[in-house]
Amino acid sequence: MSETTVIALSGGVGGAKMAQAIVENIEAPETLTVICNTADDFEHLGLHISPDLDSVMYRLGSLHDEERGWGRRNETWHCLEALGPLGGETWFQLGDKDLATHIERTRLLRTGATLSAVTARLCSSLGLGCSVVPMSDDSVRTQVNTDSGPLDFQHYFVRERCQPAVTGFQFRGIETAAISPPCIQALESEALELAVLCPSNPYVSMDPILGLTTFEDHLSALRQREVPVVAISPIIGGSALKGPAAKMMTELGLESTALNVAKHYSARSLITHFLIDPVDRNQQAAIADLGIEPIICPARLNTKPARTHIMEAILETL
Amino acid sequence: MSETTVIALSGGVGGAKMAQAIVENIEAPETLTVICNTADDFEHLGLHISPDLDSVMYRLGSLHDEERGWGRRNETWHCLEALGPLGGETWFQLGDKDLATHIERTRLLRTGATLSAVTARLCSSLGLGCSVVPMSDDSVRTQVNTDSGPLDFQHYFVRERCQPAVTGFQFRGIETAAISPPCIQALESEALELAVLCPSNPYVSMDPILGLTTFEDHLSALRQREVPVVAISPIIGGSALKGPAAKMMTELGLESTALNVAKHYSARSLITHFLIDPVDRNQQAAIADLGIEPIICPARLNTKPARTHIMEAILETL
Repeated sequence: MSETTVIALSGGVGGAKMAQAIVENIEAPETLTVICNTADDFEHLGLHISPDLDSVMYRLGSLHDEERGWGRRNETWHCLEALGPLGGETWFQLGDKDLATHIERTRLLRTGATLSAVTARLCSSLGLGCSVVPMSDDSVRTQVNTDSGPLDFQHYFVRERCQPAVTGFQFRGIETAAISPPCIQALESEALELAVLCPSNPYVSMDPILGLTTFEDHLSALRQREVPVVAISPIIGGSALKGPAAKMMTELGLESTALNVAKHYSARSLITHFLIDPVDRNQQAAIADLGIEPIICPARLNTKPARTHIMEAILETL
Repeated sequence: MSETTVIALSGGVGGAKMAQAIVENIEAPETLTVICNTADDFEHLGLHISPDLDSVMYRLGSLHDEERGWGRRNETWHCLEALGPLGGETWFQLGDKDLATHIERTRLLRTGATLSAVTARLCSSLGLGCSVVPMSDDSVRTQVNTDSGPLDFQHYFVRERCQPAVTGFQFRGIETAAISPPCIQALESEALELAVLCPSNPYVSMDPILGLTTFEDHLSALRQREVPVVAISPIIGGSALKGPAAKMMTELGLESTALNVAKHYSARSLITHFLIDPVDRNQQAAIADLGIEPIICPARLNTKPARTHIMEAILETL
């Protein structure tokens, strides 16, 4: 295939795997821009932590831990173990190597650098072959409304292990947050040929990106230029590939199906194609009825052949 | 012996050993207040690092590494190893466990707590049996003037490994820095019976404490109450117990002798007694001529019997 300029909208681990699939299967990986959700970011122990940026950065830099699914390979936890006896908070797992990222990011941000500039510097230090950019340099913070009251995202996700039942979401700061400059640049690139919505959580990973002011207009402009906007279902056979997406859907009164994810996106006319796993073939017609072109392809991204297969299916939309 | 209320003025490792000697040999260690130099403190990687407070805290909390002399036992360096490839600064050795202290201290300081309050909290978490307090809650920063120009203390001490020749010292902020409240409280305690100047570097560990506004007046008030003010020589047989004290003396045009340290303190009438090692017995008379009572006692603090011996000699001054 010829050089394909691609953007991918990504949350954490699931998005990172999709980004890896793209990098492995396009001719010029440097033309990929991965736009990461930063509404999961939080200040913890005085450090600025960007879990989704890090998940993507670590995987694309081959630093990730495959088995654990998050964080860095050959990680140790000595700092966290020492923090407990000092009276510090230890509910958020921070490995010693991972800490270096948070320390250096926080230090650079405190010098006045934007999150985009800091991320570019970290990615360049790690020798990443593509661009990984934050959706915004401004603070957007996901609040999960639950039957136990509102919770900051990481409190819901890590401290409470997604136990409280979800009633809704709020993205604090989203009205005034601007799309980051490198993200705008990628969205407006004349060369852009493909936009991918990774199989990340539609509510807490994709919606904060999609909800940024003018983001939908940018996608709309892409569709007018006939650039495919392809979402990959994070739901396979009723279960989430990873994380609380299926549980959230059920709690919100929706059946946890690929179709309902497609509806979530189609309600705002966001996508042109929706990739579902063969086990969800029965939903193909209903998806087509939404005006979205279904793509049927094994949707798990755990092996290199699977990633190649899924990318072949996606690149056929071009 | 009866309960003895003691203050000790301390730098880093040498002072920490002397503080340990006091804790091991007084009946009520909770009556000891170790007043630590904070002019070595610095901001590094966005973290507030207090090397002298930490050296004392780690040793008195039995967390120190005896062999290395500084930092924590069973330490690892994974964060620092990860920081290099991210483009971060790695010249200052920060162990993973040690980092927990800097992270928690920095976090608490950023909430608006004073260094005294933060230190009290860390010491209490570690279950320390005595008080370890910063000399001041205000910023005092040692600048070492050298033949290569002025250097921040840690740049001189760690990055440049004390190589540049010293021409003098400056303690930025000392004119306006206030003695910390717990330090004042210890200095003004009616129960105070003994003040010890640890065998720390006279120029860069003791002078910043002694140079704080009204500190000399407090020592003077103690002498008037006939409280012994005992300094232990950091120079034994012409060499420093540890660190660059002897090298500094030579570069400043002084012979590196115990006598010259005694002169350094006696010029300001700071001390009543000066403890020297038997190898420096030949300086006994000259020290007495300064109006200071010499104490002769093996001055190395590496073993428990040695520490007991030195404390017996010091407690005889009461």
